[in-house]
Amino acid sequence: MDGSLQPYCDRAHDLLIELCRHPSIAAQHQGIAETASLVEQLLRDAGFETRRLTAGDAPPIVYGEQRGRSPFTLLLYNHYDVQPPEPIELWESPPFEPEVRDGKLYARGVADNKGEIAARLAAIHALRDQDGELPITIRWIIEGAEEIGSAHFEEIVQPHAALLQADACFWEGGSYDPDNRPVLGLGAKGMLYVELAVRCMSTDAHSGTAGILPSAPWRLVQALEAIHGPDGRVQIPGFYEAVRPPTPGEREALAGQIGMEAEMREVYGIDSFVDDLTGIALRERRAFAPTCNIAGLIAGYGGEGIKTVLPAAALAKMDFRLVPNQTAAGVEHALRRHLLDRGFGDIRIAVLGACDPTLTPIDDPLVQRVRALAASFSGSEPSIEPLIAGSLPLLATLMRLVGASGLSAPTNVTYWGSRGHAPNENIRIDDLYRGVATNVYILRGLGR
Amino acid sequence: MDGSLQPYCDRAHDLLIELCRHPSIAAQHQGIAETASLVEQLLRDAGFETRRLTAGDAPPIVYGEQRGRSPFTLLLYNHYDVQPPEPIELWESPPFEPEVRDGKLYARGVADNKGEIAARLAAIHALRDQDGELPITIRWIIEGAEEIGSAHFEEIVQPHAALLQADACFWEGGSYDPDNRPVLGLGAKGMLYVELAVRCMSTDAHSGTAGILPSAPWRLVQALEAIHGPDGRVQIPGFYEAVRPPTPGEREALAGQIGMEAEMREVYGIDSFVDDLTGIALRERRAFAPTCNIAGLIAGYGGEGIKTVLPAAALAKMDFRLVPNQTAAGVEHALRRHLLDRGFGDIRIAVLGACDPTLTPIDDPLVQRVRALAASFSGSEPSIEPLIAGSLPLLATLMRLVGASGLSAPTNVTYWGSRGHAPNENIRIDDLYRGVATNVYILRGLGR
Repeated sequence: MDGSLQPYCDRAHDLLIELCRHPSIAAQHQGIAETASLVEQLLRDAGFETRRLTAGDAPPIVYGEQRGRSPFTLLLYNHYDVQPPEPIELWESPPFEPEVRDGKLYARGVADNKGEIAARLAAIHALRDQDGELPITIRWIIEGAEEIGSAHFEEIVQPHAALLQADACFWEGGSYDPDNRPVLGLGAKGMLYVELAVRCMSTDAHSGTAGILPSAPWRLVQALEAIHGPDGRVQIPGFYEAVRPPTPGEREALAGQIGMEAEMREVYGIDSFVDDLTGIALRERRAFAPTCNIAGLIAGYGGEGIKTVLPAAALAKMDFRLVPNQTAAGVEHALRRHLLDRGFGDIRIAVLGACDPTLTPIDDPLVQRVRALAASFSGSEPSIEPLIAGSLPLLATLMRLVGASGLSAPTNVTYWGSRGHAPNENIRIDDLYRGVATNVYILRGLGR
Repeated sequence: MDGSLQPYCDRAHDLLIELCRHPSIAAQHQGIAETASLVEQLLRDAGFETRRLTAGDAPPIVYGEQRGRSPFTLLLYNHYDVQPPEPIELWESPPFEPEVRDGKLYARGVADNKGEIAARLAAIHALRDQDGELPITIRWIIEGAEEIGSAHFEEIVQPHAALLQADACFWEGGSYDPDNRPVLGLGAKGMLYVELAVRCMSTDAHSGTAGILPSAPWRLVQALEAIHGPDGRVQIPGFYEAVRPPTPGEREALAGQIGMEAEMREVYGIDSFVDDLTGIALRERRAFAPTCNIAGLIAGYGGEGIKTVLPAAALAKMDFRLVPNQTAAGVEHALRRHLLDRGFGDIRIAVLGACDPTLTPIDDPLVQRVRALAASFSGSEPSIEPLIAGSLPLLATLMRLVGASGLSAPTNVTYWGSRGHAPNENIRIDDLYRGVATNVYILRGLGR
């Protein structure tokens, strides 16, 4: 690594420790205002003009802008909030007292995603110091509610849409794979999260009356079976209509990924994957097939031993992961229509979360440009994830407002063992340093 | 009522208060030994030769025998244990400090079933005092684990089978209906209580991987659907084979019952019963149809809001209520076979409880004799329940050991508002007095 960056690597380390000492747990309303102030100050220290975007009591969004040599404008997205640290007792050091052990830095939020904020900040300091100004214009939006679903993101940002417009966008994520190849993520699945609730009686009954009183659990089982057949296919008419196969370029990208099949089989204790899929077919299913998952089933008695009860109500929590050309609103509508058509008007559907899929085409010029920069920096051809299997609720809104292509560049500092959302979240300090250098290299490259 | 019984009614009241002051909560191992001693002493005071039947740490069974004028031998069954009193805060007076309010006596166990023990004891004192001896020979078995499923009943009693042999048996239950007609219960459904458990992975996964990892909740839903079709019929081959329609006599008995349909619709907040059944058809379904009930469904996340998890395991708790000619072992075997045949060998079946149905034919001479006695005592034609919708786990074993016909005579002292198993359990004191007189009348009648 370029030795002149060492002071900025140290600075990233200091910045990250300072950020991680601030709790900022959105779900628990803890430390949000203080951390927003710190982040705004850190942006000012790095040369940004800042402002706060707010709506009611929602965590404020910190916004910064800094003109660079080139009029090319890049929007960066991050979040300063973190997951709750519980269960606390499983942490080897206190979650908000960052600690270095064996070359790793442990703290809640260190990987998701304060590490990336620190690496980006330190890189910007380096570029300003070494080049006199930034190579490009940077707009940076750092929200405080990502870990609770970015519920007010659109409401807060929409009135300031002009601030977000840019020529390209780097969202969070993107790092290096276990073979040290840079990873570019081009999109995320959408999601429709619903509760299906059915109540057949006002109160539970003795199960001796099961012959004559209606059963909520059986009713729910029947509704679920109407949604998803024994062949694993979703039965909602039109559900698969918009789904497209991967393009040749996307398929090539899937072929270039590390499989991690043996590792996954070991982690989950399974002999094989669904439908005995392996290799590219497995990666294609994972990336490009929509899903229909039962996240929770709740009815009646769940304790030890015998309780002979006919439950009055039953509930299923479900998430549908949506692929390009599907929409959350469209699937919700089709689900409601399907249950009505099949005679399940008594099943109440509550939408708890909804976001559309987002995908930047693999042959987009921005993708090709970042791919070339990352390859040239690292000496390895990047691994491209056309669609991550998870969902980023804000992403569709963000991309619409930016009005340009976006991706997750390898500017993040996590690794396979980072334990995001879990106890003992950590990063490797060398990855933080590499993150600073990656950011410097790619930002400089975008200015050429 | 025969004025000469008033001292024995007072005695029943005193005995009942003494019994209810002793907790005797089998599920919580509380007061069992003390209450067993008290019950044994009360039997001795009433002229019984007693002994205790025991096995290991199980609550002891108190047994008593008293010869009467006639060699006709009647076996009485009761239990001295009670349900836990929780939730305590809903009781208007402490559950083990019996209190009289508005002509009712409130205490845990007063209805289920210490009231019947007290009424039977007081009647036996009356018969001894007024007639010099009992009209018939009485054997009485009073167990201490009915409320926890009588798990060791057979083990404890089998070695002493000779003690239980009798010409007839009165088990617990049986009282008067809301029109003050005596109720005779001729049998109870059997039950098979199972847990169906499926585990598809060693640990939960992020639901983004739902396309490629196996889903335990979907697997469980499919297995449940294979057991019970959308038409409400059980799909297990042979399940209905042994089921017989009620005999003309049983159908006549159902026709003579009070419907209570409006009351049930109000209690459960329903507009109609399953399949829009009413009248005799409804009572027939309730009494003579086997059931397949989901008592509990448990998988994944059941809390508030969103958790995007692919659960590793899922569990259903189910009870099958069985009618005459079905057996718990037979249904268990058929269920296991059916799931295997349908490809659900990964569903683990654990049997948590099993008992066979028991039914004394309505034209049995004992039934006709008790029916005539109850009619002559009360002035009303008895209401006959050929099969109660619930199950008494010990009943099949008891009837086998007695080797004679049995039923629940109207010797119990409960009413529709007794709240058995619930807070503020109570009886009407007038019903206790009537219970003493009913017992005296019927026991005398059996001696003629």
